[in-house]
Amino acid sequence: MERLLINNIGLLATPEGQSARCGEQQGKIKLLEKAWLLAEDGRVAAVGSGAAPQLDAQVLDAQGKLVTPGLVDAHTHLIFGGWRQHELALKLRGVSYLEILAQGGGILSTVRATRAATEQELSDKAAAALHEMLCFGVTTAEAKSGYGLNTEDELKALRVIRRLNSEQPVELAATFMGAHALPPEYKENREEYLRLLCEEMIPQVAREHLAEFCDVFCETGVFTAEESRRILEAGKRCGLIPKIHADEIDPIGGSQLTREVGAISAEHLIVCPPEGIAAMAEAGTVACCLPATSFYLGATFAPVRDMISAGVPVAMASDFNPGSCPSLNLQFVMNLGCLKYRMTPEEVLTAVTLNAAAAIRRADRIGSLEAGKQADLVIWDAPDLNYICYRMGSNLAHTVVKKGKVVV
Amino acid sequence: MERLLINNIGLLATPEGQSARCGEQQGKIKLLEKAWLLAEDGRVAAVGSGAAPQLDAQVLDAQGKLVTPGLVDAHTHLIFGGWRQHELALKLRGVSYLEILAQGGGILSTVRATRAATEQELSDKAAAALHEMLCFGVTTAEAKSGYGLNTEDELKALRVIRRLNSEQPVELAATFMGAHALPPEYKENREEYLRLLCEEMIPQVAREHLAEFCDVFCETGVFTAEESRRILEAGKRCGLIPKIHADEIDPIGGSQLTREVGAISAEHLIVCPPEGIAAMAEAGTVACCLPATSFYLGATFAPVRDMISAGVPVAMASDFNPGSCPSLNLQFVMNLGCLKYRMTPEEVLTAVTLNAAAAIRRADRIGSLEAGKQADLVIWDAPDLNYICYRMGSNLAHTVVKKGKVVV
Repeated sequence: MERLLINNIGLLATPEGQSARCGEQQGKIKLLEKAWLLAEDGRVAAVGSGAAPQLDAQVLDAQGKLVTPGLVDAHTHLIFGGWRQHELALKLRGVSYLEILAQGGGILSTVRATRAATEQELSDKAAAALHEMLCFGVTTAEAKSGYGLNTEDELKALRVIRRLNSEQPVELAATFMGAHALPPEYKENREEYLRLLCEEMIPQVAREHLAEFCDVFCETGVFTAEESRRILEAGKRCGLIPKIHADEIDPIGGSQLTREVGAISAEHLIVCPPEGIAAMAEAGTVACCLPATSFYLGATFAPVRDMISAGVPVAMASDFNPGSCPSLNLQFVMNLGCLKYRMTPEEVLTAVTLNAAAAIRRADRIGSLEAGKQADLVIWDAPDLNYICYRMGSNLAHTVVKKGKVVV
Repeated sequence: MERLLINNIGLLATPEGQSARCGEQQGKIKLLEKAWLLAEDGRVAAVGSGAAPQLDAQVLDAQGKLVTPGLVDAHTHLIFGGWRQHELALKLRGVSYLEILAQGGGILSTVRATRAATEQELSDKAAAALHEMLCFGVTTAEAKSGYGLNTEDELKALRVIRRLNSEQPVELAATFMGAHALPPEYKENREEYLRLLCEEMIPQVAREHLAEFCDVFCETGVFTAEESRRILEAGKRCGLIPKIHADEIDPIGGSQLTREVGAISAEHLIVCPPEGIAAMAEAGTVACCLPATSFYLGATFAPVRDMISAGVPVAMASDFNPGSCPSLNLQFVMNLGCLKYRMTPEEVLTAVTLNAAAAIRRADRIGSLEAGKQADLVIWDAPDLNYICYRMGSNLAHTVVKKGKVVV
């Protein structure tokens, strides 16, 4: 048996439970001072405070620091070719996104670069990002396809995710998102792309067990609520769990759809209306909010306090992608949770651990430090939760442990 | 002679000149593709593109990456005891800053912690911050006293700065800021503190050559414009160059004072009125803008485009301090320069190199990569300037060179 004993923990802070926490429970955190944690064969065997047990184990001295569960980044567009830094300069000169799109820029340039890239190239690039995420304390992440937009290149992206899952320590949950945009070659034949998605791509993704989730961008100019429902239902028939990009720019019914299709999570929700919040609360859908995207776009921020009041469990994620959020730093997302969503540091912790785990159907296995769960954790250069949310701009993750092994 | 040859530079980007750049010049950057740089005895000997000279030198391969001058952080409150993370939680619960102050919190708690700390403690803490700044690409920084607020503890802070200047690679410019707040023990005797500042502290700081600059917080409830003038004039009589915290919350005349006292820089300027901008333009004062503070406080952002239009040279700095900006990440400041001030990446580069150097009277020596200047530079994990401003949250500094030596 492989044992790791982490002793001399100044403060151990963790949400508790096997499912998403909502309402007042979102801010209820277990705090253990002068604590220790014992991991056995990759799982938490016991947690306690006071004198650590004497046993044969590798010992890691936490030097009086804070320990939390490993962070979970529940929304990333990890697999893409190229970057789009030149668009920042264009935007600063007043060029609109539509003009950039008309010049062949925007998401279409990422689609071209992703299609042109080999599996190896995509894998190398994503591996570098994952290593950096790990250094920031992320031990599990979701990763979407969605820049292939044809069967071959969507499957290529999902195969890269599968491969990365076995080649590096950050555990990945794969999401098929062929419905990220209408590819230009189907501009005049929308129905044919919907058919391709529902009758060809989704079944093949399912046959090859390449994804757990199916996501769709429900937005003006992308997919309507009705189209989104159709795609997500097709996914469900093949065993893919629905997720939905909803209410990012226009509230066209995406968040209300969560209840109808039984979505595990809804993403963005910047302009989520009260009916959408009510639907999510009723369906038990996790609101996966992406404040770094609001920040980068100069948009408003999702009504997170309203969601918490209404009993919607809130997760936060990076939305890492080359267009609207070129940041993979989940610690910055935690800062924004306090500064922009007005969440407490305790609510923030739940949002990037247990509730994020719930958004990718892993709350029974990760997201908290309790006996039986995976021993994924971060030792922080910080004395308490407030400090993590207060200090901005520094990477405060000191040591990262994945499945009972020190990986950073 | 010690020679360092940096070859295989993909793109060398630098402002040019020996003084601050303003107006259109702020965005004029020299770009050299496929470049090399030769440093001799800590100074830039030559810069060129194409084949590098063949000579006896240590060679550093820039691997096709971007090279810029080392960053200059022209405004930090580097020397302080303690942190104030618990105030974030209080603020999120709706407790006002005045209530926090009344509870003995706010700046007064930092003053207590700074007075209680030994020189060694302050030095160790600041050294850790400086190392992190260096890792982010900062090769020169300004550092203020201002949490001692009595002769002994102000001098203690300045001695820490002097000592750090010889003990680690980041060059420091010291600023005396005894006029950071009215210490509580002078609450009923304001005039006596002004006398202490002007007749005791400033002369002693000057006698011991502990500071180059004198700064004052000109703000409602802190020091009036008239008091600020008096303090800065006292500093000038002792050879200290005036700086002024102006228009952070209320425009009470601080920015207009720059012309009258000949301030080398004015700081914050969030609510700077047109008359202040005109005064700075006339006086050649550098506007040292601090966007991370606006961000952390949820305040508005300084009218930087108006300043640039009016011919005011704009610098940006971190404002690192435990109250209003617990971040020392100048790369995040660069992101904010684009996203919030709407500066171009070229204007941003000038703001954190040459203009920042001018704000601390070092534009003749640092801030650009030209023959004769100090060989302070950063090799970036980036292909161009746009990329640095676009990617958020990652530390993109790959290699940092100070005075011709690799230090990170």
